Order: sequence, then C-alpha cells, then structure tokens
Amino acid sequence: MKAKVHVTLKRGVLDPQGKAIAHALHTLGFDGVEDVRAGKVIELQLKSTDEATARKEVEAMCSKLLANTVIEDYAIELVA
Amino acid sequence: MKAKVHVTLKRGVLDPQGKAIAHALHTLGFDGVEDVRAGKVIELQLKSTDEATARKEVEAMCSKLLANTVIEDYAIELVA
Repeated sequence: MKAKVHVTLKRGVLDPQGKAIAHALHTLGFDGVEDVRAGKVIELQLKSTDEATARKEVEAMCSKLLANTVIEDYAIELVA
Repeated sequence: MKAKVHVTLKRGVLDPQGKAIAHALHTLGFDGVEDVRAGKVIELQLKSTDEATARKEVEAMCSKLLANTVIEDYAIELVA
C-alpha cells in the first residue's frame, strides 16, 4: 500500500520559503501571484495491505518524525 | 483562484532526502516502510479567476522557476 503525507505550515506561521518563491515569481514578471505557501509531500511505500493498519502506522510516523505538529499540519492520503 | 503545484523527483533519480527519512523511520522501529520519496507542494494564490488562463500561467511558472524539469516532474491542481 502507498501513502502520501502532505505536510504544510499552519495558518499564521511565517513561511520564508513561500515568501522567497513569491518574490522570485514577481521578479520574473508573474504579477498575478498574491501569496505562496510551500509544503512537503512524503510518499511512503508500505508493506501493510490493510488500510486501517496503514493509516494508524502513518499517523504514528507523522507525529513522531514526519511533521512538527507545533507549527505544521499533515494530511494522510492512502492509495491502494 | 488557488493552484497547488506538486513537484516530485522523476523515477530513477536518486532521492537522498527520501532515503534519510526511510532510515530514520527504520531507526524508530517502523519496519513496514519499504521506500520513501520526498517532494514539494507549492500553493499559489492567484489573481486570475479564469481556469485556462491560470493553468497557462502556472505552467509557465513551473517551467521557469518552480520545477527543475531535467530531474523533476510537476502536476498542477486548480482549486476554485
């Protein structure tokens, strides 16, 4: 089973990477860009074939390693 | 209009960040992880409200700045 974890900064947390991308886009002439936020996707190939087990396992990975829950949100997407 | 750009390394391109995450997960006891690939998500808030225009604009941003098309693939997702 495959899992995709989307890690994004919480609303209100300053995003310097996003700001830098927005600045670079404006410099290149893309004036239609109002705001940019940068995040991560982590694609995991899991041995587990059971969706409930896989979700529990990935939840644990997120809270222990993949996301910093103080400043980041995460969303888990399972693909068969 | 909002756009999400998913940037992932092409198949076959070595992913040291993914390898490091996989190693850290194994160290933490998550033995059910077979492979990890790391990617980026860039969320753009656009002035444009027309889907076709927005897609064209974001395509141009991807090829000029957001993705390195030699080693990376990108996917654009538009949200009204």
